[in-house]
Amino acid sequence: MKKIAILGSTGSIGSNCLEVIDTHPERYRVVALGAGKNLDLLEKQVRRFRPKSAALLDQPLAEELRRRLDKAWGTEVFAGTEGFVRLSQMEEADTVISAMTGAAGLIPTFAAVRAGKNVALANKEVIVMAGALVMAEARERGVSIIPIDSEHSAILQCLQGHPREDVRRVILTASGGPLQGSTEEQLKSVTPEQALKHPNWDMGRKVTIDSATLMNKGLETIEAKWLFDLRVDQISILIHPQSIVHSMVEYKDGSVIAQLGIPDMLTPISYALSYPRHVETFLPALRLAEVGTLSFREPDYKKFRCLDLARAAAETGESMPAALNGANEVAVELFLKREIGFLQIPDLIEKTMTAHTPRRVDSIETVQEVDAWARKKARSFV
Amino acid sequence: MKKIAILGSTGSIGSNCLEVIDTHPERYRVVALGAGKNLDLLEKQVRRFRPKSAALLDQPLAEELRRRLDKAWGTEVFAGTEGFVRLSQMEEADTVISAMTGAAGLIPTFAAVRAGKNVALANKEVIVMAGALVMAEARERGVSIIPIDSEHSAILQCLQGHPREDVRRVILTASGGPLQGSTEEQLKSVTPEQALKHPNWDMGRKVTIDSATLMNKGLETIEAKWLFDLRVDQISILIHPQSIVHSMVEYKDGSVIAQLGIPDMLTPISYALSYPRHVETFLPALRLAEVGTLSFREPDYKKFRCLDLARAAAETGESMPAALNGANEVAVELFLKREIGFLQIPDLIEKTMTAHTPRRVDSIETVQEVDAWARKKARSFV
Repeated sequence: MKKIAILGSTGSIGSNCLEVIDTHPERYRVVALGAGKNLDLLEKQVRRFRPKSAALLDQPLAEELRRRLDKAWGTEVFAGTEGFVRLSQMEEADTVISAMTGAAGLIPTFAAVRAGKNVALANKEVIVMAGALVMAEARERGVSIIPIDSEHSAILQCLQGHPREDVRRVILTASGGPLQGSTEEQLKSVTPEQALKHPNWDMGRKVTIDSATLMNKGLETIEAKWLFDLRVDQISILIHPQSIVHSMVEYKDGSVIAQLGIPDMLTPISYALSYPRHVETFLPALRLAEVGTLSFREPDYKKFRCLDLARAAAETGESMPAALNGANEVAVELFLKREIGFLQIPDLIEKTMTAHTPRRVDSIETVQEVDAWARKKARSFV
Repeated sequence: MKKIAILGSTGSIGSNCLEVIDTHPERYRVVALGAGKNLDLLEKQVRRFRPKSAALLDQPLAEELRRRLDKAWGTEVFAGTEGFVRLSQMEEADTVISAMTGAAGLIPTFAAVRAGKNVALANKEVIVMAGALVMAEARERGVSIIPIDSEHSAILQCLQGHPREDVRRVILTASGGPLQGSTEEQLKSVTPEQALKHPNWDMGRKVTIDSATLMNKGLETIEAKWLFDLRVDQISILIHPQSIVHSMVEYKDGSVIAQLGIPDMLTPISYALSYPRHVETFLPALRLAEVGTLSFREPDYKKFRCLDLARAAAETGESMPAALNGANEVAVELFLKREIGFLQIPDLIEKTMTAHTPRRVDSIETVQEVDAWARKKARSFV
C-alpha cells in the first residue's frame, strides 16, 4: 500500500492522480491533499478520500475549509507554503506527488526530498530551477524522483533494463502545439485563446502556453539533463504532431527504444505511482492501424526561439535556468493578460538572461532570490 | 571475450555476423565457421578469421577445403550434419550462432543447447518445429536463446526492465513484402523475381518469399510464443511498410514500448552478441525527421492466408507447426522452381495440415519424422 500526499490535487494532474488512485484502492491510499485556491473542489476531494491532512495556499480559504469540515471529520487543515511543507514531511506519507504549477512547488518539493519521501514529479520547474540541489539531495537521502511528464516518463521507461553507459542520446518529442503551421507574421498577433487550443493534450494554462512557444521542450531539456544525468548535446527535439510517440532513447548500436500510447496523462501518472510495474489503467488501447500515420520533423528554431534560449541556459548552468524560468513565468502571465504579444515572450526571456550574472546554486534561498530578481527584471522590460 | 561458432557463416546473416565481430575484435573471437555449399566464400572467411574448426554440409566440398588449406594452417575441417554438430559442441565455443536456413539447422542447434552453449538464433524454423523441446532443454541447461530476427530482437529489447506479468500483448510489425498492393488476380501470376524484390530488407531467398506470403510473420508468431512464453492471442501483426519500428510490446497500463532503427540486420545481430549491452555498430543513426512518416495498417488475412494457417498451427500445437513448416519449405522451393503459383503456397500447406494428425513432440526424431512426412505429403499434392 503506497501512502500518497498530493500537492496540487485540484489541478489537471492532481485530479488525474486521484482517478488513478481511485482505480486501485488496494494499491494506493491518499494521506494528504493540497491545493492553491480551489476550495470547493478540494473540499469535495477531502470528503471523497478522507485524507489525514489538507492544505490551501490561501490562508482565508484554508480557514473556510476548516469551518466547512465538521470537527468530527478528522482532517487537519493547514495553510500557505508552510502548510504544504507540513504535508510534504508528514510521517504517514511515503510518496509525494508534486503537481503544483511553476515556482510555487519548489519549497514543498525540496522539503519532501529532504524528509526522505519518494517524489512523483509533474512540476518540472522545480528541477529546472534547482536541479543540482534537488538531485544531490535525492541521491543523499536515497529517494527516487519519478517524472510524471509524459516525455520523461517515456524516457524512464525506455531506459529500463538497458545500460546507462550505452545511451547515445534521448529524443524528446513535441506535438508542436497549436501554432506550428503559423507564419512569423501570424505569430505576432496570436491571441491567448488561439495559443490555449492544444491539439492533443488537455493541460493547465501555463503548460499549454509553454507548449505553444516550445518553451515546454526547453524546460524539458533542462529537466532531462538533471533527471537522467545527460549532457545538453545528448538531448534532441523532434516535432511529432500526433503525440503518440512520447519520447525515445537512442543507444550506441543504433537501436532506438520508444514509448508510445494514446495522449492521456493517466498512463504516465499511473507509471509514476506503480513504477517499475505497469498497472491496469482501463484506458482504451493504442490502435496504430487506426492512427494510420505518425509523422516527424525538425522544429523551427528560428520561429520558436524559446528552445534555443532554454538550451543556452542549460549549457550556462548555475542559476541561469532559474532566471530563464522566472522570466518565462512572468512573460506567459503577461501574454495571458494581453499585456505583451506572443513573440515578446522570448524577447523578455532573452533580455532577462542577458542581464543575469549566473550565481552558484548552493541553496534554495539563492534559487528564490534569482527567481524574484528575474521576475522583477522581466516585468521591467514591458 | 566471447568465443563464437557460426553455423551458416556464408549466408546473409552469417556474413553480417562476421562484420559485427570484425568491428570489435576486443569483444569477440571466431572459433568455428560452418557453411552449406559455398566453398570459396568459406575458404576466404577461414583465411580471414583463422577459426579452430570449419565445416561444410557437402562432403566432397569439405574434402576440397581440406586440400586447399595448407596443413600448417591448423583449421580442422568437418563435413555434414555431424560436422556441424561437432562445431556446436566444441569446448572452445561459448556462443553458437544458428544462421542456417530452414530445417537443416535443427540438429546442430539442439546439439548446441544440449552442450550448454548460449545460442544466438537466426534460424527461426528450429523454434517453429521444436519450440517445446528446445526451450525446455535451454531452461534445464541454463542457457539463453537470444533471437537475431529483427522482430524478436525488438521484443527482447522492449521487455528489458519491465515485469513480464505486466505484458498485455506483443505486436510484430511486417513490411508486408513486395506484394502488399497486389490484387488477388495479380497474386495468382506473381513470378519468383517479383516476389524476391523485398522493399527494405536484403535477406536470403527463402526468407524473402516467406516475407512476400506473410508466412514469415506466421513463423514469427510461433517463434514469439515459445521465446517469450506468450499465448497466441497475445501476439498481433501490424503492417508497417517502412520497416523502422521493428516490433512492440504493449503493457497493462496502455504503455507501448517499441524498438526502432534503420532496417539493417547489423543492429539485431550486434545486440544478440552483446546482450544486454548496446555496442557501437558504426551504422548511420535513424533520422526520423528524414524518414518523415511511419504508417501502420492491419494485414489482409484473406489475401495472405499463410498468416492464419500459422496461427492455427500454433494454437493446435504439438507437431502441427513442424508440419506447417515442412510443407512451407517445399512450397517455397516449388514456387521458386516455377512448379507452382504464388497462391498455391498456402493451398499446399493447408492440405498438408488437414492431412496431419498432430503428435506429441517428445524428441528431435519425432520432429524429423513429421518434417519428412510433411515434405513428402506437400509434394504429393502437386
